[in-house]
Amino acid sequence: MQDETLLMMPGPVPMPQRVRLAMSRQAINHRGAEFAECFDDITRMLKPMFGTENDMLILSGSGSAGMEAAVANFCPGKKVASLVNGKFGDRLYKISKMYAGETVELASEWGTPLPLEQLEAELENGAEVVTLVHNETSAAIKNPAEEVGRLCKKHDALFIMDGITSIAGDEVQADKWGADVAIVGSQKCLAAPAGLAAVSVSERAWENIAEWKPFYLDLASYKKSAAKSQTPYTPAIPLFFALREACNIIEEEGLENRIERHRNMAAAVRKAAEVWGLDLFAKTDKFHSYSNTATGICYPEGIDDSKFRGAVKKMGIEFSGGQDHLKGKIFRIGTMGATGAPEILAVLSAVQRTLKEQGYEPAGCGVQAAAEVLKV
Amino acid sequence: MQDETLLMMPGPVPMPQRVRLAMSRQAINHRGAEFAECFDDITRMLKPMFGTENDMLILSGSGSAGMEAAVANFCPGKKVASLVNGKFGDRLYKISKMYAGETVELASEWGTPLPLEQLEAELENGAEVVTLVHNETSAAIKNPAEEVGRLCKKHDALFIMDGITSIAGDEVQADKWGADVAIVGSQKCLAAPAGLAAVSVSERAWENIAEWKPFYLDLASYKKSAAKSQTPYTPAIPLFFALREACNIIEEEGLENRIERHRNMAAAVRKAAEVWGLDLFAKTDKFHSYSNTATGICYPEGIDDSKFRGAVKKMGIEFSGGQDHLKGKIFRIGTMGATGAPEILAVLSAVQRTLKEQGYEPAGCGVQAAAEVLKV
Repeated sequence: MQDETLLMMPGPVPMPQRVRLAMSRQAINHRGAEFAECFDDITRMLKPMFGTENDMLILSGSGSAGMEAAVANFCPGKKVASLVNGKFGDRLYKISKMYAGETVELASEWGTPLPLEQLEAELENGAEVVTLVHNETSAAIKNPAEEVGRLCKKHDALFIMDGITSIAGDEVQADKWGADVAIVGSQKCLAAPAGLAAVSVSERAWENIAEWKPFYLDLASYKKSAAKSQTPYTPAIPLFFALREACNIIEEEGLENRIERHRNMAAAVRKAAEVWGLDLFAKTDKFHSYSNTATGICYPEGIDDSKFRGAVKKMGIEFSGGQDHLKGKIFRIGTMGATGAPEILAVLSAVQRTLKEQGYEPAGCGVQAAAEVLKV
Repeated sequence: MQDETLLMMPGPVPMPQRVRLAMSRQAINHRGAEFAECFDDITRMLKPMFGTENDMLILSGSGSAGMEAAVANFCPGKKVASLVNGKFGDRLYKISKMYAGETVELASEWGTPLPLEQLEAELENGAEVVTLVHNETSAAIKNPAEEVGRLCKKHDALFIMDGITSIAGDEVQADKWGADVAIVGSQKCLAAPAGLAAVSVSERAWENIAEWKPFYLDLASYKKSAAKSQTPYTPAIPLFFALREACNIIEEEGLENRIERHRNMAAAVRKAAEVWGLDLFAKTDKFHSYSNTATGICYPEGIDDSKFRGAVKKMGIEFSGGQDHLKGKIFRIGTMGATGAPEILAVLSAVQRTLKEQGYEPAGCGVQAAAEVLKV
């Protein structure tokens, strides 16, 4: 669309019209029955996406606020094992160092399998909380939440799972996997606007809640208010309206269908990369797989990140480069939320043309191959 | 409007159509040029409303997040004198106790003049930071920010001023008054949606920034990102669009005109109360005056708060009761933002009818008197 850029980053993502228009409503009283209904609708619809029956709390703030809330409420005084193979794992580690009694970093190179044996050793060595990013978009790798949950259960440790970019787009089973605390951000697979984070909290986590925690992120206040279908401080009302509409759309699509669509979109992007002859960045194994919501592709020799993304942007499409030390080395295409075949084909076609234009000759027509993968 | 309630509470307040529609735009990249322009527009336009040339930082979170940011960044290790004559002053006091080296509460009854002599004594006694709510909506009193600022300057103390419900609706001169840190909330006099807080920070405050502060509220990160016209974490993008449009509208009205309009609306509400024979709740003196953005009126004997507000709500209008121990004793009408004569006359007429219906015979026609006060 002229004057509108198609956002194919790993969030924020394009929003369906119904979601956008839901925000244009007039302000309502956040202590009244209408807001309570909206609040209840959202928590009811989010629970199956988390795979949980635990308490669901909604913060007006970014996903990072949700991450800090999880750590600040449940890590103080505890020994924390923090799994890191990307930028967001590192963020959880950094926040944990601010709050925990002790934090052990269990790191592997970004985008490579996590050291699960080290985790088991740390759990045997007294780690009481484990933090994991389920879907690490910085490196486009999906981490083994189920396996980490199994190890946590075995050693009776609390499991904090960042599901910010997996929940509502990929399979998440917080209760089955034993994720005591799980977090989602509104602007990722939910295809709602940025600005809300939802956090689920298990009974076992509540038993371990810290005495001191930041005022705005004190989850005990959110729990108390949630019992009245409210938030402790004035919520970002239009974002609640939008999130409810986004959840309605997910219910209509069906969660299974939505997950299958995300898998299929990511498979199409991976197929294009393969046919072009480009490497995927993530290294997978028995426990780790490619992300279904973001794909990281290594630049071929000679392609300059900013020139490349600049040219695609002129065609009206934005995706992401690498973060931190991956800048210039990879590019990342999001397959999140409400996007479908038109958006996937558009971004892949623009990438293919630009690869050629900027001196890399694709081994084959990735766009055609991707189009054949798409189940539409 | 059928199916729309007119919100005459002290925030959130009704938003102009332009502000509401600004939110319905598609998502954009919050690291791109378009967001940067929006960010710059907002900070440029907010500064005159704060009366400051200091740094302007924008948090995706409620006004309470802004309050905590102010205290968490500048009070640790310090002796804080916290002025309290209402619910929000009390909130600042409670947050200060969480972070400060020592916090002295300087309290008076809600809605009564603050103990300024005690403040001077505490400043002589080594208080290094003073917290004040400029416009205390819980008790509808305007506190003497200029005088408190004068005392702070005299004793070289930092001055944290909550201007959440005064900025953009009443005169605020942060720099002239010496408010090192000032805070506004988006859903009050700005007439934007709830969900953003802006905080201004002076050089002197930066020199006193704490080493440890919560991750999400670390104002040093916001300052660093603001230099690139960004926020450190994904911002609530649609709320930024809306806030920019709200600021545009304020620029078009002219800040002086807007302040005069707020004063006039509040004067009209006070006039109605006087003619009805009802008492205003706040006790004023040389330094303290009635709030121009919220008016607190004492219920006459025999009127039940929930029955009263319930009846008015059936007519399509909501305002607020008293908070905490003032529940049932007062009701509060907001005169904030973009509302004007139609809204003021509607709420006053509904109140007058309901007073009569529920057994209180007004001494005179407050609506007529208020209408004569309105400068339109």
